[in-house]
Amino acid sequence: MSVLPVSIQKLIDELSKLPGIGRKTAARLTFYLLKQPEMELASLGEAVSTLRQDLKLCQACWNFSETDPCAVCNNLQRKAEQIMVVEDPLDVMAFERTNEYHGTYHVLHGLLNPIDGIGPDKLTIDKLLKRLQGFEGKAIELILATNPSLEGEATATYIHRQLQNIPNLKITRLARGLPVGGDLEYADEITLSQALQGRRDY
Amino acid sequence: MSVLPVSIQKLIDELSKLPGIGRKTAARLTFYLLKQPEMELASLGEAVSTLRQDLKLCQACWNFSETDPCAVCNNLQRKAEQIMVVEDPLDVMAFERTNEYHGTYHVLHGLLNPIDGIGPDKLTIDKLLKRLQGFEGKAIELILATNPSLEGEATATYIHRQLQNIPNLKITRLARGLPVGGDLEYADEITLSQALQGRRDY
Repeated sequence: MSVLPVSIQKLIDELSKLPGIGRKTAARLTFYLLKQPEMELASLGEAVSTLRQDLKLCQACWNFSETDPCAVCNNLQRKAEQIMVVEDPLDVMAFERTNEYHGTYHVLHGLLNPIDGIGPDKLTIDKLLKRLQGFEGKAIELILATNPSLEGEATATYIHRQLQNIPNLKITRLARGLPVGGDLEYADEITLSQALQGRRDY
Repeated sequence: MSVLPVSIQKLIDELSKLPGIGRKTAARLTFYLLKQPEMELASLGEAVSTLRQDLKLCQACWNFSETDPCAVCNNLQRKAEQIMVVEDPLDVMAFERTNEYHGTYHVLHGLLNPIDGIGPDKLTIDKLLKRLQGFEGKAIELILATNPSLEGEATATYIHRQLQNIPNLKITRLARGLPVGGDLEYADEITLSQALQGRRDY
């Protein structure tokens, strides 16, 4: 017999559906929440329930946004003809934090992964093609900024091949090399080779 | 400038208040939730918001419950005169899963921890005293089942001292020794000593 009240059991069940949260963590979080003031619970509950309210996908870059086009695409200070292709909105956040990128984005919402059944049709690649065709021959730079993983590389290669016929398109990739704070001694061979190949004048 | 929509930012903020969940995990969970069907969001949101609805503290054992007294205390098949003192409701769950314990519980809702300012007044120790006095001299067994940690030991010792004047009270503790699946070689000295001291006839 379970001695758990229904509401506790239900929250444990719901939380353990989240990625990386097992039943034990879910139970611990639930009992933590039980100790919080009622207002905190209401606040978190509402944040979850209303997460998708007023949320759209920007029809230019396909990032989540409250407006369409989104704040980035709508910002005239940003270069519309520089487009960075990223896997998901978290990558947009990461680049925005650098304050160094002044172009726009294109969010794929995933990477190609045949094993998980994610083909090109599940991503926004066709929308990227249409978007690029809309520039009608104007010079564009497309920065392929997918993760340096197997899926990321495969996706970048696939996109690169699809875009052969777009005129006046410059396709670039992020530099590979040693990360800041990294240690030569512990760097893998591929990273070291890429750091060597990509060396720059001092 | 943050490009995050308010609703996303809010959920990330709320989730990162939870113990063991940093900003990165909170962001990952939020974007995972964004991909879930609307119903899932509503379900989780409601589970959080209504967590404390209809939830009481059983006035006998101080466990969370929908009824007062709770299902365990109200169950006539269970021995009211055998009381297991535990830190929190998760420990009750753990013992209920064994299907081996047929007594009742007393939930302390914490352990003594002077550094965090948790004194005896923050726990349900006074309520335990009153509960035991209510037995009016009938034979009772009290099982001190706090965690085998510094705070757990200190709390057990404190409770033990408080109960000196209760007549006909037998106080026991959980056995210490090697856990199932454990490895002698990696067991710490204290556990090994306790396993030796507590050895039983074969």
